[in-house]
Amino acid sequence: MKKLITTSALLILFFNLSVFAASNSSSKTKGWWNVPYPGTFDTSQLVNEQAFIRVKGNKLVDEKGTTFIFRGVNIADPDKLRTENQWSLSLFEELKDWGANVVRLPIHPISWQKNGKEEYFKIIDQAVIWANSLDMYLIIDWHSIGYLPDELFQHPMYDTTKKETFAFWKDVSFRYAGVATIAVYELFNEPTDQGGRAGKANWHDWKTINEQLIDVIYAHDKNVIPLIAGFNWAYDLRPIKQHPVARKGIAYAVHPYPQKAKPKVKSKQNFFDLWESVWGFAAKDYPVIATELGWVSADGLGAHIPVINDGSYGPQIMEFMQERNISWVVWAFDPLWSPTMIKDWNFTPTEQGSFFKKQLQQHK
Amino acid sequence: MKKLITTSALLILFFNLSVFAASNSSSKTKGWWNVPYPGTFDTSQLVNEQAFIRVKGNKLVDEKGTTFIFRGVNIADPDKLRTENQWSLSLFEELKDWGANVVRLPIHPISWQKNGKEEYFKIIDQAVIWANSLDMYLIIDWHSIGYLPDELFQHPMYDTTKKETFAFWKDVSFRYAGVATIAVYELFNEPTDQGGRAGKANWHDWKTINEQLIDVIYAHDKNVIPLIAGFNWAYDLRPIKQHPVARKGIAYAVHPYPQKAKPKVKSKQNFFDLWESVWGFAAKDYPVIATELGWVSADGLGAHIPVINDGSYGPQIMEFMQERNISWVVWAFDPLWSPTMIKDWNFTPTEQGSFFKKQLQQHK
Amino acid sequence: MKKLITTSALLILFFNLSVFAASNSSSKTKGWWNVPYPGTFDTSQLVNEQAFIRVKGNKLVDEKGTTFIFRGVNIADPDKLRTENQWSLSLFEELKDWGANVVRLPIHPISWQKNGKEEYFKIIDQAVIWANSLDMYLIIDWHSIGYLPDELFQHPMYDTTKKETFAFWKDVSFRYAGVATIAVYELFNEPTDQGGRAGKANWHDWKTINEQLIDVIYAHDKNVIPLIAGFNWAYDLRPIKQHPVARKGIAYAVHPYPQKAKPKVKSKQNFFDLWESVWGFAAKDYPVIATELGWVSADGLGAHIPVINDGSYGPQIMEFMQERNISWVVWAFDPLWSPTMIKDWNFTPTEQGSFFKKQLQQHK
Repeated sequence: MKKLITTSALLILFFNLSVFAASNSSSKTKGWWNVPYPGTFDTSQLVNEQAFIRVKGNKLVDEKGTTFIFRGVNIADPDKLRTENQWSLSLFEELKDWGANVVRLPIHPISWQKNGKEEYFKIIDQAVIWANSLDMYLIIDWHSIGYLPDELFQHPMYDTTKKETFAFWKDVSFRYAGVATIAVYELFNEPTDQGGRAGKANWHDWKTINEQLIDVIYAHDKNVIPLIAGFNWAYDLRPIKQHPVARKGIAYAVHPYPQKAKPKVKSKQNFFDLWESVWGFAAKDYPVIATELGWVSADGLGAHIPVINDGSYGPQIMEFMQERNISWVVWAFDPLWSPTMIKDWNFTPTEQGSFFKKQLQQHK
Repeated sequence: MKKLITTSALLILFFNLSVFAASNSSSKTKGWWNVPYPGTFDTSQLVNEQAFIRVKGNKLVDEKGTTFIFRGVNIADPDKLRTENQWSLSLFEELKDWGANVVRLPIHPISWQKNGKEEYFKIIDQAVIWANSLDMYLIIDWHSIGYLPDELFQHPMYDTTKKETFAFWKDVSFRYAGVATIAVYELFNEPTDQGGRAGKANWHDWKTINEQLIDVIYAHDKNVIPLIAGFNWAYDLRPIKQHPVARKGIAYAVHPYPQKAKPKVKSKQNFFDLWESVWGFAAKDYPVIATELGWVSADGLGAHIPVINDGSYGPQIMEFMQERNISWVVWAFDPLWSPTMIKDWNFTPTEQGSFFKKQLQQHK
Repeated sequence: MKKLITTSALLILFFNLSVFAASNSSSKTKGWWNVPYPGTFDTSQLVNEQAFIRVKGNKLVDEKGTTFIFRGVNIADPDKLRTENQWSLSLFEELKDWGANVVRLPIHPISWQKNGKEEYFKIIDQAVIWANSLDMYLIIDWHSIGYLPDELFQHPMYDTTKKETFAFWKDVSFRYAGVATIAVYELFNEPTDQGGRAGKANWHDWKTINEQLIDVIYAHDKNVIPLIAGFNWAYDLRPIKQHPVARKGIAYAVHPYPQKAKPKVKSKQNFFDLWESVWGFAAKDYPVIATELGWVSADGLGAHIPVINDGSYGPQIMEFMQERNISWVVWAFDPLWSPTMIKDWNFTPTEQGSFFKKQLQQHK
């Protein structure tokens, strides 16, 4: 890691601590007035100097200016893994062994709320230390599904508010400012108004809320890549042609599951045409990261729309993304979250698991 | 019941279940990630085919196009009745016996919060089954009082938020889509800024929030009648002359308690003139439902402004409403919620109880 | 106290109590439907007739029109004092003895939430009774720090929402309407966007939210002075030159800690020039109250930016304020909340404590 910018020294200049619990007082009283200010991540726990990944034109580059492609996997919400005793360095070592250079952490609002931020930060801290020790990167993903401007969501586990979402990114970007290991902040997993059932999606409002989130993040840390999703569950990026998010240094997310494109004839060319028109075009001007993709056969575990496919999807989407320098992160390295990459915690690959492992190995 | 449209089959097309708990996995873990998606009401529990009631011009009509008038009563919040062991089929049978064709369920936000939606839905389910078995209809009423755009309310039992109110109607309209028994969704009981003490009421904002709520409801269910109230505790509909709620298929609510109109001379004609000018006029263009009305003598149980009257109110308001095809639902079939219709749980009628029972019997 | 206007009698006219728990019913059921309406402060507990303090031009005046200057201290959050067994009449007697004519109560949102409003009102009631018995005034201060329009705050103890802030002032102004002892409502302690880390401060939004809060307060009580703060932790009032808060009868707050002004050469004239340009100018048109000020030496207890000073600050800020009829309230009469005025609960003065005690004694 080349440099670790900490903003904590700077911050004290801005704080006007009307309330101050004298440091040399024994804490006889344990009141709310003695709750300390949050701290920043202790970077002395990191062993590797990792390059900051940045946006340059429509590419991601390392500090030498070399094009960088994220290739990796989603794991389940760390809280789930911890509950199941699967949260460990050895999990990250397995991912490294498969060839992943990035791990996406899908932090569900319900999980964040259940743990509280202090407790959840301990979990993220571990991920940072483990990923850094293996020279892998992390994507922090605020894993909600719904329409944030109207605060309506698809399921209780995705339920959040504008206030909580802004506070999440304020707290995360304060704590991990200058930590190169966390390369990407995916602001909101899958925006959708559920066809009107969760409000009425409006690109202007969505663009504005993303710009406000980016401003809060950049006020803490300019060395991170904000990642923005479009409507239709992070599939449709067409509005950015006319109305891109007006901030520098950003990238766009896409979740191009196989049944999102619906050509009449399922030819490779027809898929390529649809993908290009709805999201692939964005790669001409911006870095694009497919932070979820994957498939399962119709009779496979947890098969559901829109992830069902006969397997033709894998090679096609890989070819499409490779031509455009699009990064990709497969869903999901978990034996229960479908479409699954592994059958069990011995890491036995599923159909798509075998395919993507081979892809990862090629670039290892 | 002629047809039961369920939207659940449709919904699966829109869902993008990034998280999927495999159905064949034994639920060793009871985590938040195994919480199922909400289900729709099981219509196989219904024994009667009830006609959908719809809006046609300024009338409510059944499926044959025949004019339909709701005549019935408010019961207390079902949670109160359940706590007092009065929540039963026999209560609904008594209401049927009085001649009611509709029962209004005033669901208080505090009651909804206390029970949680899963538990409260079980209570509403019972009301649907009981009402359907007796061929009666239900009005679901989000029983808050205050000014929702500013989120300020008259009492803790009415305290809610925009988010909760939208989520309430999202969840209700998802669960009961296509269930004819629930004919009316009364979006917000009594809007008022309490003379500035709860913010500053603004018709444009109130109209907009109602339109947004209707959009969420219609995205789930087009076979229901959204019912909209005006300011001054659901009394004043004059703003709709210039700025009606811009959605089809709706009706307007009014709560014309006797002391709301204040003529200098308390003649019938003067009351009629005031009623006509403030809300009665609306019946020329829209169906109007008086979802609360009633009176008590000055020395009666729970007498309070604006419900005190000497009894002259009853015949006058009935004549006024009958001339205009206005539906009516008396407050309240409960021995403690004033103005009361019954003195005890043997259903002994009070003064207004006797009057309205006779009215109901005429149309039985 | 000359007159005590109670609005409760008036209020009943507006209420439309759809739910009414009959008063003569034994409360067999303890349900939410029996929670009473909030009451107003019982003024029969007050022994002194205190003059209402009002705004006249750029001055505060008593009922004879004589200019009135608030001179007093901040105590800690009453909840902290109560927890530490320091919440008592004798504390207020000590403050009176020092010469204070006003006491500021910094009510932290976390403290308000912890106690609940019913419990916290009991504490404030005590302060009113004690202050009144000593002919002192109170400032109620909603002690948050952050940017309310974006609902982002500096620390968990300051965390609140727009809804909670409006409800706080609705409830406070309802309860204490017409009580002269509480002279000032300080709407929000220290507005700041923390240099972008808590959103993007915008004077138009801030001005609007203050006007809306004032409207809610004035709907309950016109005999109180709303006090409004500017950005930079209640330091910068320059936006009011072009865009003053458009309500009558208000005053402006300032927290002019010594390190807020940063002249290159630390001369008295340079401080005076900076103070005048950023907030002192406001005293030409409005009453100004410095509701926090004070200092500690660099090696003193709890020394932190922006309160560190060598002692020259005291005489200079007093001279500056005296020339402009600016009221002042020192932070803080507590042995642990820095900069402290007392070393212990025997009230041994610190450096600034001795200075300000002498100032207070001059006007006693």
